[in-house]
Amino acid sequence: MTKIGEIKPGKVEIQGWIENLRDKKSMQFIVIRDLSGKVQVTVVKAEKPEIAEIFSHATLESTVKITGEAVANEFVKLGGIEIIPETVEITSSAEAFPIGPESSIDQRLDYRWIDLRTERNQLIFQFQSYLINAMREYLIKNNFIEIHTPKFIGTASESGAEVFEVKYFDKKAYLAQSPQFYKQMAMASGFERIFEIAPCFRAEKSHTKKHATEFTSFDVEFSYVNSFQDVMALEAEMIAYGLEKTKEAYGEKVKEVFGVDIVVPKLPFPQMKLRDIYDELKERYGYEVPESEKTDLTTEAERLCDRLAKDKFNHEFLLVTDYPPEKRAFYHMRDNGILQGYDLIWKGIEITSGAQREHRYEEIKKNAEEKGLAKDVEKYLQFFKYGMPPHGGFAIGVDRLTMLLLGLPSLKETQFLFRGPDRLDP
Amino acid sequence: MTKIGEIKPGKVEIQGWIENLRDKKSMQFIVIRDLSGKVQVTVVKAEKPEIAEIFSHATLESTVKITGEAVANEFVKLGGIEIIPETVEITSSAEAFPIGPESSIDQRLDYRWIDLRTERNQLIFQFQSYLINAMREYLIKNNFIEIHTPKFIGTASESGAEVFEVKYFDKKAYLAQSPQFYKQMAMASGFERIFEIAPCFRAEKSHTKKHATEFTSFDVEFSYVNSFQDVMALEAEMIAYGLEKTKEAYGEKVKEVFGVDIVVPKLPFPQMKLRDIYDELKERYGYEVPESEKTDLTTEAERLCDRLAKDKFNHEFLLVTDYPPEKRAFYHMRDNGILQGYDLIWKGIEITSGAQREHRYEEIKKNAEEKGLAKDVEKYLQFFKYGMPPHGGFAIGVDRLTMLLLGLPSLKETQFLFRGPDRLDP
Repeated sequence: MTKIGEIKPGKVEIQGWIENLRDKKSMQFIVIRDLSGKVQVTVVKAEKPEIAEIFSHATLESTVKITGEAVANEFVKLGGIEIIPETVEITSSAEAFPIGPESSIDQRLDYRWIDLRTERNQLIFQFQSYLINAMREYLIKNNFIEIHTPKFIGTASESGAEVFEVKYFDKKAYLAQSPQFYKQMAMASGFERIFEIAPCFRAEKSHTKKHATEFTSFDVEFSYVNSFQDVMALEAEMIAYGLEKTKEAYGEKVKEVFGVDIVVPKLPFPQMKLRDIYDELKERYGYEVPESEKTDLTTEAERLCDRLAKDKFNHEFLLVTDYPPEKRAFYHMRDNGILQGYDLIWKGIEITSGAQREHRYEEIKKNAEEKGLAKDVEKYLQFFKYGMPPHGGFAIGVDRLTMLLLGLPSLKETQFLFRGPDRLDP
Repeated sequence: MTKIGEIKPGKVEIQGWIENLRDKKSMQFIVIRDLSGKVQVTVVKAEKPEIAEIFSHATLESTVKITGEAVANEFVKLGGIEIIPETVEITSSAEAFPIGPESSIDQRLDYRWIDLRTERNQLIFQFQSYLINAMREYLIKNNFIEIHTPKFIGTASESGAEVFEVKYFDKKAYLAQSPQFYKQMAMASGFERIFEIAPCFRAEKSHTKKHATEFTSFDVEFSYVNSFQDVMALEAEMIAYGLEKTKEAYGEKVKEVFGVDIVVPKLPFPQMKLRDIYDELKERYGYEVPESEKTDLTTEAERLCDRLAKDKFNHEFLLVTDYPPEKRAFYHMRDNGILQGYDLIWKGIEITSGAQREHRYEEIKKNAEEKGLAKDVEKYLQFFKYGMPPHGGFAIGVDRLTMLLLGLPSLKETQFLFRGPDRLDP
């Protein structure tokens, strides 16, 4: 079989979709498409009556297998080549499409397998696959291994809220909201450097552009960090590596289809303390919030961080540090009351949280107790009792990363099949 | 920080586990281990009383950070180098282990994070990560992309039995037993060549060495196949590529630790029809079963296939074809009543099922109706109505593959955390 994008004059066998079909008096012109390109098939009805008969009944978006002769023809727009068919087989027949370019995103999701059939949507997933694999390549080069942690968990950990419950024979199980506890367990196991790219499940009834009940998380954890600076540095390097490789492979196409310039970020990424950000947002842009809201970035402050990062550092990324410990997960390390964790903001949205973790049994137990979680995380705390290296890590939402990078309006566009409170099909 | 395996004479900072500690009258000898190796730390008590004090209270398997001078010493067994410490910090203290080499596999699973801390167990997961990534590399080189299909599904597909039910807000959802329907949907979407490495969930109350309620599946699907021969050929190439690369990287270590020779299989893999296998098992080994059991391989026949493949083809793998259609999934193509699917048997166990899929709407509908499934798979059948390329694919159980390759007794050894009907913790 020949890929359509690689056709040269001579005998060919191609397969693809019927993209267009013009049935004239004495001729038929059919455009066939596969992932690699498009080509015109030309039928002189008087010469090939059986083939003309087949195409006269064919519907658009049916799939077809064609053997024939590819010949140069300077009048043909598609690469100056046309195919004179010898055999034609309609391998599947398509009904008329129930959706079109005018359909809403939710109508399109009902027929996602048709919706995905555009060059734009193909590109989203080619691009996503490439980017994730480039970041994986960075980690593997740096002696990380990929592990697969269970999604079934025995106790509703972390908080109990927002966790899905499963009927597990005569018991109950829950679905992991993140591999957090297990990637830390890998550190207790002496794995030193691991990552996982896997689904996470969150029972949030959110209907925002950046939430889904199921999403793909890119999780990294590694041992023997000296501070959370090591974690931020590794994440920045990984992202820069991924974007550089992806720009090489897809930069032009992304520019053409999405109008987006992929910027390879300089290292290190700039960082600012949460409090300093609020000071500077006020000073530069007149943005003010009550003191009580300054324990986290407001949605608007997040958005303004994009502007701030560009104005102050000429950079797209901003690492935000020094969150108040009481607002962050109990497993983030505190050093004299200072949280050893961070968020990474890109294009006005948080794409990742990371930290040096608390690895000392007595300390993590105390942190859990302070949050009233000691009972819930009792089993997790056992991981720390038999030796636990100092370690840290972070997680990136793959779908969110893709959305931001391509400037898309919602996760509904970057998940192969979006899952939300009201969306379980197809 | 210096990796222990790369220490050279001079100043070093290392981190690792206390593997051994001999506290003599005037000296202490401590062995520190990280993933890369082991090294001896030597303390002359009179010279370094504070450090001697720290080690005198230290427990085995605590983690430690040490700075000091690495010096050559021909009397030291571990690489002829010892470290004279300048600073020592116990980064975490370990309690005495609740399990030991004499513990049963189930006791060990209760403390899996300790159980994994052996060289043997580390190797299993390093090896698995490497093998999977090598197979991924083969696919990416061949223009496949990696996708992430949802694990939440709206209807209990395929059969309804053995599927886990999830409380999904005020509705019910189910967990995907495999990405089968969605990887086929990707074909309807024009993705052409995709794979996914992700968890699958099966509510089977099996307690065999090769079953788990959650496992990692390596799924492949691609368009424009001409027959299921194309599917078998691609799978064989992918496995051979993966084994060749993994043998290069891990062959010696696997031989040393597991006593297993990794054999890079010759292409193409041998194939036999189910019926011919039974004939030959009778002829060669006197193995007979009643006619009624010959619709599938019995466990014993599967086991004997290993011997047959070696005796007849001097090969480790055997592709089994021509199963009776009534025993196989409705989405496998039949050609004049002959099933266009196969199983791949390795080391006496089925590691994969594959097929050319039925891509024609009328035919797949008929197949589903014959199995009484038409209602259950109504939504799936929609994927076939708007054009569907001829396609095929296969799935490999990652944990099972690892188990067979390393000659391990059970999936409990090859899953990071095993999940079975009675096992949800840790």
